[in-house]
Formats: sequence, structure tokens, C-alpha cells
Amino acid sequence: MSIRSLALAASLFASVAGPALSQPAPGQPTGAMLGFSDRGAAAERDLEHRFDAMISAPELDGWLLRMASQPNQVGGPHDKDNAEWQLAMFKSWGWDAHIEQFDILYGVPVAESVDLLGPAPFHARLHEPAIPGDQTSADMPGVLPPYLGYQGDGDVTAPLVYVNYGMPDDYRTLARAGVDVRGKIAIARYGGGWRGLKPKLAQEHGAVGCIIYSDPKDDGYYTDDPYPRGAQRPADGVQRGSVNDITLFSGDPLTPGVGATPGAPHRYTRETAPTLMKIPALPMSYADALPLLSALGGPVAEASFRGALPLTYHLGPSPVMVHLVVKSDWRLRPIYDVIATMKGSEFPDQWIVRGNHHDGWVFGAEDPLSGQVALMAEAKAMGELAKSTGWRPRRTLIYASWDAEEPGLIGSTEWAESHAADLQAKAVMYLNSDNIDRGYLNLEGSHELQTLANGAAADVTDPETGADVLTRRRAYLQVKADAPGASAEAKALAKVAGANGPLPIQALGSGSDYTPFLQHLGVPSLDVGYGGEGESGGVYHSAYDTHDHYVRFGDPGMRYSATLARTAGRIALRYADADLPPVDFSAFATTIAQYVDEVHRLADREREETAARDRLIDSGGYKLGLDPAKAELPPERQAEVPAIAFAPLDLASARLTASAQRFERLYASPSLSAAHKAALGRAVQGIDLALMSAQGLPGRPWYRNMIYAPGTETGYGVKTLPAVREAIEQRRFAEVDGAVQATAAVLNAYADRLDRASVAAGG
Amino acid sequence: MSIRSLALAASLFASVAGPALSQPAPGQPTGAMLGFSDRGAAAERDLEHRFDAMISAPELDGWLLRMASQPNQVGGPHDKDNAEWQLAMFKSWGWDAHIEQFDILYGVPVAESVDLLGPAPFHARLHEPAIPGDQTSADMPGVLPPYLGYQGDGDVTAPLVYVNYGMPDDYRTLARAGVDVRGKIAIARYGGGWRGLKPKLAQEHGAVGCIIYSDPKDDGYYTDDPYPRGAQRPADGVQRGSVNDITLFSGDPLTPGVGATPGAPHRYTRETAPTLMKIPALPMSYADALPLLSALGGPVAEASFRGALPLTYHLGPSPVMVHLVVKSDWRLRPIYDVIATMKGSEFPDQWIVRGNHHDGWVFGAEDPLSGQVALMAEAKAMGELAKSTGWRPRRTLIYASWDAEEPGLIGSTEWAESHAADLQAKAVMYLNSDNIDRGYLNLEGSHELQTLANGAAADVTDPETGADVLTRRRAYLQVKADAPGASAEAKALAKVAGANGPLPIQALGSGSDYTPFLQHLGVPSLDVGYGGEGESGGVYHSAYDTHDHYVRFGDPGMRYSATLARTAGRIALRYADADLPPVDFSAFATTIAQYVDEVHRLADREREETAARDRLIDSGGYKLGLDPAKAELPPERQAEVPAIAFAPLDLASARLTASAQRFERLYASPSLSAAHKAALGRAVQGIDLALMSAQGLPGRPWYRNMIYAPGTETGYGVKTLPAVREAIEQRRFAEVDGAVQATAAVLNAYADRLDRASVAAGG
Repeated sequence: MSIRSLALAASLFASVAGPALSQPAPGQPTGAMLGFSDRGAAAERDLEHRFDAMISAPELDGWLLRMASQPNQVGGPHDKDNAEWQLAMFKSWGWDAHIEQFDILYGVPVAESVDLLGPAPFHARLHEPAIPGDQTSADMPGVLPPYLGYQGDGDVTAPLVYVNYGMPDDYRTLARAGVDVRGKIAIARYGGGWRGLKPKLAQEHGAVGCIIYSDPKDDGYYTDDPYPRGAQRPADGVQRGSVNDITLFSGDPLTPGVGATPGAPHRYTRETAPTLMKIPALPMSYADALPLLSALGGPVAEASFRGALPLTYHLGPSPVMVHLVVKSDWRLRPIYDVIATMKGSEFPDQWIVRGNHHDGWVFGAEDPLSGQVALMAEAKAMGELAKSTGWRPRRTLIYASWDAEEPGLIGSTEWAESHAADLQAKAVMYLNSDNIDRGYLNLEGSHELQTLANGAAADVTDPETGADVLTRRRAYLQVKADAPGASAEAKALAKVAGANGPLPIQALGSGSDYTPFLQHLGVPSLDVGYGGEGESGGVYHSAYDTHDHYVRFGDPGMRYSATLARTAGRIALRYADADLPPVDFSAFATTIAQYVDEVHRLADREREETAARDRLIDSGGYKLGLDPAKAELPPERQAEVPAIAFAPLDLASARLTASAQRFERLYASPSLSAAHKAALGRAVQGIDLALMSAQGLPGRPWYRNMIYAPGTETGYGVKTLPAVREAIEQRRFAEVDGAVQATAAVLNAYADRLDRASVAAGG
Repeated sequence: MSIRSLALAASLFASVAGPALSQPAPGQPTGAMLGFSDRGAAAERDLEHRFDAMISAPELDGWLLRMASQPNQVGGPHDKDNAEWQLAMFKSWGWDAHIEQFDILYGVPVAESVDLLGPAPFHARLHEPAIPGDQTSADMPGVLPPYLGYQGDGDVTAPLVYVNYGMPDDYRTLARAGVDVRGKIAIARYGGGWRGLKPKLAQEHGAVGCIIYSDPKDDGYYTDDPYPRGAQRPADGVQRGSVNDITLFSGDPLTPGVGATPGAPHRYTRETAPTLMKIPALPMSYADALPLLSALGGPVAEASFRGALPLTYHLGPSPVMVHLVVKSDWRLRPIYDVIATMKGSEFPDQWIVRGNHHDGWVFGAEDPLSGQVALMAEAKAMGELAKSTGWRPRRTLIYASWDAEEPGLIGSTEWAESHAADLQAKAVMYLNSDNIDRGYLNLEGSHELQTLANGAAADVTDPETGADVLTRRRAYLQVKADAPGASAEAKALAKVAGANGPLPIQALGSGSDYTPFLQHLGVPSLDVGYGGEGESGGVYHSAYDTHDHYVRFGDPGMRYSATLARTAGRIALRYADADLPPVDFSAFATTIAQYVDEVHRLADREREETAARDRLIDSGGYKLGLDPAKAELPPERQAEVPAIAFAPLDLASARLTASAQRFERLYASPSLSAAHKAALGRAVQGIDLALMSAQGLPGRPWYRNMIYAPGTETGYGVKTLPAVREAIEQRRFAEVDGAVQATAAVLNAYADRLDRASVAAGG
């Protein structure tokens, strides 16, 4: 951590230091603001104060009610209606707004069924009935049956096998138990990794169909009372979702790398698109899954496979057959992104892009509209600021309401691909939000933006406690670490939270619209959210994610949607108004050094564990330690982990730290001339392009960011330094040295850019 | 670890070294044997080989079938019949045998009921119906209804509160959730600590009644298929058990410290006995518990409180009342210990006492008869050895079959108290077993016996794999540590297991008949068992613990009962026949040094965690990190952990190590004369009496061993260096320095004894 960061952090927390953490001093915060002079910071805070006052929770509530009143899935009439209504709103607030349409491949279900055959037949309901007392009825016209976007269609009859979360480790466990998935229908529970990996891995292991159900252990009565008594998933509730393989690329399956503008040529057909599943798959409620799981034979599932249904979980196969049918209507369907622009007065070619999506699986009250109405509130308030005070952003603000995020980040990806050259030349930040709940601040993103995000958060008031949201997040981490059984990771985080420096932000994987910007184009990105207290997750992607549910359980009074608007809007305003780009390369360099340390330790641990396990296998001790009455086999012997030539990465990390420190001295210099400031700003614009690899990541050229990527075996979960880390984790040892060199090369290129910026600024 | 131990261990494992761990070389093991000359060791192994061949698994099976054919609870006719039959058997095998009778207070249920009142009433079944296909019928005459020994009787009507495992931490969680147990009936699930603490702590927290049920998460369909499809507890299965407070003293509640011989004066009445509960309590099946738990209101239980029943676990209280009635027939009842002696030829006043119990809760096939038939097989084989070869033990063997272990280790305790002076003067080892299952060797006990136990185990063949049982245990520990999510503790154990030294044995807490010997009298003790593969635990203390269940799921073919006989019998034979007592004081000293290190680290960790928590409470941060919409309160502020003057303990431990090393050099000296050997043997006899405190442990004078004790807040679980450790854990900091000094004093006294032994042996 840099000295400047420390000093800045100390000033940020000046207002909350001392014994009265829960009662911060009243009045406006003061102190340094990254990228601003002291006077500029005071003026900016004045502006932010006015901005805060323009955010109205009741107004957010009205918008949410309107937008979530009918199903708003891709291709549905209300989804288009919401886009057009938003367009009118943006325009009425003084923004230069338009809709961009893309035509994408999408299939909606026309027939689906699951039947357990044999002596005790069962026909799955596959339907979410209306909940008494919820004014948004799940039975209204336009609500589609539960389905998985981009599954493969088919009509199969086969025995059932239970694959737990359906993740790579689960298949290793099944193999050791002697259970074969080939020719079977795999039933997986939600959780443990991204949904889309479940049919993908089932397919790769030879399954002919896949069912994904919500086990009450993870998502149902085990966690809290089901809806409507509580917030959790009721017995018939189903999690919809997309299963196209976004670990390869996001967006329209037919047009990777280019915008799917109407009439654009297609690189793939439905048959050839590599992100599309080949086997039929359906999501399912736990009421429907219970008879299926009860029908399983074979070995008893080990503890990590067991859910909370009242049965003994077996791995299968089932002695009886299951018949699974899915048929969809596949066609090109139009989607509608709403794009609103407020041009920068001073740096019009420095773009701050702020986005959230507007499509949902059914009504989508929490996902995505809880975040979307915040974005709208920001835009309205900025429009009012412009009207009432004459304020103009110094940099250009682009507010975007994406369509078709749910099927695969499609609206954002197609727009990003359509405007790739402009974005790479001009976009200085992509700022995302998505569904949120009552609770604690969540910050994820590019680490050069960590100090900006911390600084803004320290000035936002938590509606429940009156503390600032950063302080509350710190307290939350510390309390969590004090709980019995807290993990070592939680304890380490709490230690950092208890210290006075900036709170580290987490790296971005995937699962929302930042992916095309950060990981395909190289635009520094942030994702801002709230959660951890509200309980909307219990109806995630179901027909019960309604306005009624959200205002009862997710965010009563919409206070956190309003707080999101104050947080994300503040971050956008600060970047828009700053003298210097509010970037902190030392925070980035510090984080990179941690990642480098992690991959060292990962290799060491893998090497040690592999050697110990292989010794035990070779000696016969592994077999000796197992129960011979059970079918369990020892693990397969693995190749030893070779020595890895980490030196290029170590050196690049050290050099990056030095370059960042040099840059920082200049950046913080009080004597920096206006000309040098401008030069410095220009010199760092687009610096993150240096992190992009021309060839992309191994096996997925669309993903080009060598620092941040979604894991190929986690889906949403991030892998930092992905080429190196995944080569080690996936034991592709022949590739590791090359990955180290390629990663070191982008870091060296980044350091070169930093050094040139220092020279440009007279350093 | 001592050099001698290392050398010994290396020789022990010579036969299993190299790549063929699972295929040990055939033929007899060789190598050093503690307490024997090389020639003596060879002769002893010959004897053991003959001994092994005399153990017949089918014979064990026949005995088990006979003894488990009818209910054999305390006071039942079949319990007495089993004692008389065993007496005859011992006599027929050439032992000098008799029955010792004691008259103890015991209550058996005459009326019991649980009713849920209110609009949806429910009457608990409280009955275990017969299982089709099990030839031992749970419905046969003489089977008592499920009950808890020594609960308090009563007729109460009150709301219900769910207290999880009913352990001290659970009450802290309830307090933080604002749930008060006063005036309520507490319902606790089995697990998390000794059963008897549940009504005790409920009573201490003001509950008027207590129900303990078996949650399927810990004990039922969650773990595997229920009986009869699998081995696990069926929906109506109930765990009986005793709840008198053995953390105060074991044995008859009216006569602590003295034998309850017929006509003996009583120190207490039922009303004044401090180990007896005052509130009514019953055990329950999960079928009966389901409607009760479903009736609970109040906050949702946190994750660590949740079981596997298909409901959302709430803490309560229930809006409706529960009516609980228990009435017992309290009277003095006779119990029957069978005592068989084979006098030592050379050291008749050095006694090896070997015990198991013969009473059960119902049929008791696994608990206790799986262990008891092994003890009988040992006695029969020793009798045959004596008859056929003229062999005589050099030391006296006393084989004991205890009655009334289940209600509170009563048969063993009353016998130990009756013969206290003789035992303290003469007993050199108490060797225990109890219920066992198919699987891995378990060794627990006094650490001076660790090398003896390891050595014997290294010469016993595992019936499933052909490896020796010690090697198999090592492999088991290593495989367990390789499983995903293995604990740091498991990994540390595996490291030790992978090394070449003796495998550490665990310390003894309570829960079986070693307690009066080890912890009240100071007789060095060992407990030997097998388990980890067989699944008799699923019917523990229920009417389904039958011969049929045991030979199907617990130990098919009785091969592990036979292996227990070969293991425990071998340990007894080696001690009985050795030139020198087979004791290893360096193993004891090494273990003490570890315990001393543990209490240091315990205090440091408590100090650090308390300080961090208090800072967070004082700053208001704790409240800030909690969800204000929930009732959860911050923890209570705690006194800081003071500096502890550990120096006396550190010095005593160092001195003990030095004294043990000095002794060991003499012990291992090849030039030790016969006279010196005899002197050495005499000098260490009764050395463990030095570990006993005249005042006993704080608040429980009956427990006098300052090294090993059951925890007052764990019940069965051991606390080593208990005075020190519990004073820290229970935050009685004013007592810690005194406890350190008292513990150091016994260790110094022990070292004194060792030094005198060294002098006596010419050192």
C-alpha cells in the first residue's frame, strides 16, 4: 500500500475515528479527494450533497412497481415497453438518449416435461403457482414456464444420477465411488459454481440430459421460512437462468466479437455455436425433485453431497427411468438497449459508462430492477443538477440500460462490441450495478479504482445506522470474523478491515454486464452493490421476485436502492469532475503483488499435496486406509508439480510497484502544472489496454484481460492472473512457464505506459 | 520423543516398510519389545501366537447371540442371568471367579408422556416398534419405554424452546437472540457434547423440563439409510441414556467415594444427591420431534442450530404449550460385577485389571456386548494357555465384567471404591474396552502406556487387509487428511502418522469404566477399541441394537471383536509377562510438554480474541456490523485475559523430561542387574498416585487426577491439565495461577518419584 493511500485513508476515516464508530460526527465529510484539489474537493462535496438530496426512495419504489408489473423477459412486450418508457424518462431529464436494437438468437420453451417412470410414476409439475397475497400473480399471461436459456432441446429417457453441484470435483468424487454418468440424466443442485457449468460438465461426462434443482439446504426452508411466511424459495419455486457458456464469450451466441446489429452476418449457427448446450436441460423446484431423488439407488452420497430434503441422498443410478423433454422456439429476437449521454464539458472524449440491465426472468423486481431504478435516479438527479445549477460533467457520462443481460450479458456485449474502437479509445471507466438488497456495501473491480471507490463510500451514509457505508462494511467484516467457526480468510479480511487503510475491493469474475468492458475491451471497471441483510435471494430468478416480495424482504422502503444511487452516482460524478483521473496505480501494483504471491503458494501447496498423495497411493497406504466394504477407490495418481519459473512474474510485479510509486510521486506533487496535469491524464487514458493479450486466454480468445477473468471451472467466480492460475489448477503444467511470461509481458507493458506517463508529466 | 522410542518404533515397522504397505511380509513380527529381553520377546510372541489362534469369531458370535437375546438393563432378570452365566464360564476356564453385588439407587419409568397442546394437538409415540426381519423384537416383554436414567420426574406444562445441542455456547447464542429458557421446556438434539449436560444446563438456565431427540442430521436418514434398509436410526428410534452428572463423580449417586455394598450407609438421599437432575426429561425419536419443532415460533435458528428435518428451525418459544410427564419407580436395585482372577507367579501384588461392562439399555448387542465377548474370549484363551502349556502370568490378571455402566459407570466405580486401598497399592494398569465396530484401531489412555499399546498393535493383524492394525490406523489418518476440507488438526495428525515414531494415543475423558481407576484412584489406564467402518452407531442405546443389526452392520463375522480380543489380550499378556514394567515415561513427558504448550496457546488466543472483540464492542462497531432488523445483540463484554504465571508449569515439564530421560537410560541399560530390575519395578509401582491431588479438581473433589479429566462442559470429552485448562476456558482467571502451581506440584512429585526410581536402580 502506498504512502499516499495511507495518508488519504487516514483523512477519510478522520470523521469516524475514536470510540463513537456508530455515531459519526454530523455534517459533511472533509479531507482529500483523489484527483481533486482541496478546494475542488469541497465544491464536489457540495454538489454531491445536492445530488444526494435529489434521490427519492418513494420515487424509486414507484418506478419499480411500474417496471415489475408484468413479465419482462427478453422478447416479451413489457421488456420493450420498459425500454421505451425509460427512453422517454432519460429524455425528459435532459439526456441525449436513444435505443440501440440488436437481433439475437434466443429460444423460448414451447414444450417441457419430466416424468419418473416405473412402478411409482411421477409427473413433475414444472410450474410456479401464484402466491396468495402477492399482487403480482405468477399465473398472469406472458409468464413462461421455468426454463434454462440456451439448453439443447431433446427428448431422452435414461436412468438418473445425482451429481451434487455438478462441478469438476463432484465428478472426481463420483468416479471414485464408481458411478458413471454416461448415458444418464444428471440431476444437479444449484450452488457450488455457475449454473451454466452444470449441463456443460454433464454433457462432457456423457450425460444425455440435465436437471438443475434448488435444494432447500442452499435455497429453501433450510435457510429461513419460505414465501409467503418468510422470504425463502417455496416448494414449487424454480430458479431460471441461462446456461450458454459465458466462460468462452458473452453476448449473442452467433456473433462473438462483433455487434449483432440487425442484418449483421453470423459467424455461427445454432448448431455450430460453441457456447450452446447440446443436451436438454431444465430447472426444477425441490417439490418436483423430491420424488426423483428418492428414486435413486447406488452408493450413499458423501456428506458434501447431501442437501436438506428428508431422504438419504444416493448417487444413483436410479433403477427406473426418467423421461425428459424440452422443445424451444428458436429465432432471432430483438433486444433494446437504452443509451443516454451527457457530454463532458472539458474532456468529452473521456467516457464514463454507467450501466445496469432492465430485462428479468419474470417480473424481475430485485433482479435487475432494484439496481436499475437506482441508475435512473442518478440520471434524473444529474439532469436536475444540470438544469438547476448549470453544472456540467467535465468528462462525458453515458448511462445505459441494457437488455438481455439474463441470457448472457447480451445487450451490453453487443453494444460494447459494436462500439469497441470508440470505447477502447475513450472509455475511462465502466461502472456497473445489478440486483441489490438491504445490507452492506459490496465493491468489486479494477484495483486502480479502489481508492476512488473507497473515498466515495466513505462519504455515503448508511440508512440503517447513520454511519458511512465503508465504516459499516468494515464493522460487518469484523463481526463476521468473530462468529464461531469463522474461516481463516474471514479473519484475515477482518484484520485488514480493522486497520486504517483502504478496504481492498474484490476482483471481478463474471455474471453481470462489466464482462465485455473489462475482460474483452480492457476498460477499467467497478461493480457496486448492497446486500447481506435483505432476503431477495430466496426468490432469485423465479416468478416470485416481485415488487411485493422485494419491498417486504429485499429492501423495505427502497432505502438501499437509494443508497446505491448515492454511491454509484457519487463515483460517476467524482470521475466526471476530477482534475486528474482518480486512479491509484499503487493500489493496483499492491494487489498484483498479492496475486503473484498467491500463485506461488498455490503451486507450492499443489506440489506438496500431490507428492504426499502419490506417496500414499504408491505405498498402498491409500487403499489400506479405505473401507474395503465400500466401493470407494483411491484417487488417480497425478503427475508431480514441476518447478515453475516464476521469476519473470516476480520481476514484472516489482517493476510495476516501482513504476507506480514513481508515477504517484508526480501525481501527488503540489507543483504539477496544468499542462502537466493534462498530459498526465492523457498519458494514462487507455492504460488498461496494456493488460490485454492479442491472442486472449488459453482456449478462449474473446477473453483478453490477463489479470481478471471468470474461471473456466467456476463460471462467475474470478480467477486473477488467469492464464497462470488456471494452468496450475488444471494441471496443464507444460503451459505454465509460457503463461508466466505472457502475464509478465502485459505487466511490463503496463509499467512502460506508467513510466511514459511519468515522463509526460515532467517526472 | 525419546531415542529409545524411535529405535523401538523403527524396529516395529520394519516388517511393513517399503512399497508394500498393504501386503506386509508374512510370518511373525520381530524386534524389540518394551520390558522384555530379546529372548523374552521371542518367547512372548510365541505365546501370543498361540493366544491368537485360540480366539474364535464364531464362538464370540454365539456368546453375543445368547447375551443379547433379552433385555439386559440394570435390574432386569436377564442382566443377572448374564452375570451368573459369565461367572460359570470364567470358572470353567480355570479362573478364580466370584460375583460382587452392590445396591444402588435407580429409577425406572412407570409413566411418561409428551403432548403438544393447542389447535393442532399431537401425542408423542415414545415407543420403538419392532422392525420386520429383526429376530430380536423390540416389543418383547421386559423392554422398557425409552427414558433417561436419573432424570428428575415431574409433570410440567410450558412453551417449548429449541436449544440446539444444549451446550454452553448454545445458551450464549440464545441469549444474543433474545430467547429466554426460563419457565420453558427445552428441546435439545443429541450431539455436540455429553447427553447429561443437556438437562443439567437446561435446569441451570431455568427450564422446567427437557426433551432430547435424535436429529436425522446427526443420527438418522441424513447420514445413511435407516434400519432396516440401512444401519441408521429409523424414524421411531430413540437414544436412551443416563443424565446423572458424572462430571461430579461416577457411580451410585448416594455413595460417592465408598462402595455401595449391601447395607452401606448413604451419604446422600435422592433429594440431596448433587448428581441427580431436578427436572423431568425424556429422550425422543425424530418422528416425535417433528411436530414439536414445527410448532416453534420466534427467531429462525442460525445455521449451526439446524438439523435435517424438513422444516425451518426456529428457536421458539412455541405459541402453544407442551405437556411433559415422567414418573419413575425409585428404589435400591442390586447390580452384579463378575470378577475373575489369575494370580501372578512372580509379582502377585502387581495387578492388571481388565474390564468391560455387561449391562445394556435394551439388548445391547453392540453396546456393550461386542466388547464384552472379546474380554471373555481373552479369558478363555488365557485359561487354555494355562491348562495346555503351563503358562502363568508373572503379574496378577483380574478380568472384570461390570454391571450398571450405562447408568453411570456404577459397577466399576463401586468396585473401585470398595477396593481403593488395594488398587492404589497394587494395580499397575486398568485396561478397558466397550462397544466396538468394524474398522480402525482406537487407542486412548495414560501416555506412559503409549509404547506398550503401539507395540502390541503393531503385532495384531487387521482382518480386512492383512496389514497390522497400527499401520492401518496410520493409513486411515493419512487418507482422512487427504479428503477435501480436512481440518488442520487432521492434517497435523496425518503428518505424525506418516512419520516413523509411535502413533500418539489420545487422552481419556469419560464415558466408560476407566474413569474410577484413572481419575479417582490414579491407576494408569488404557482403552482399546475399533470402529469407523461399522455402523452400529445408528442404533446406539435403542431397542434396535440387536444381534441381527450388529452382525449385519456393525461387525459382520465378528472379526473385529476377535481382533479386539487379540489386541487387548496381547497388551494384558505383555504387561503380565514383562521383566520390567512396560512403561515409557518419556512418552508421558513429551505429551505433557505438548499439553503445556496448548494451555499457553489457549491463553494467548483467548487474550487476543477477547481484546479484539472488546475493542469492537466498545467502539460500537459490533452493533454497527449486525442487522438492526434482527433481534441479535452483540456479545457481552468480557474481562481481559490477564498475564498468567506459567513458569512453574514450564519448569516442571522441563524437569519431568529430564527425569524421564535419566530413568530411560537406566531402563534401557543392558547391564542392569536382576536386583536393580526388581528395584526399578518396585520403585515405579504406583507412580501415577503422584498425579493425584488430595483436594481434587475445583468443585469436584472426587476427580483427583491433575492430568486427565472429563470436561465439566463437555461431559465425555477430555480436558488435559484440567485445573489449568478449564480455569482459562471458563474464564476463572483468579484461579489460574493457583491451578498452574498445583499442576506443577504433581508433575514435580512425579519427577521426584522417577528420580528415586533411577537411584534405586543404581543410576
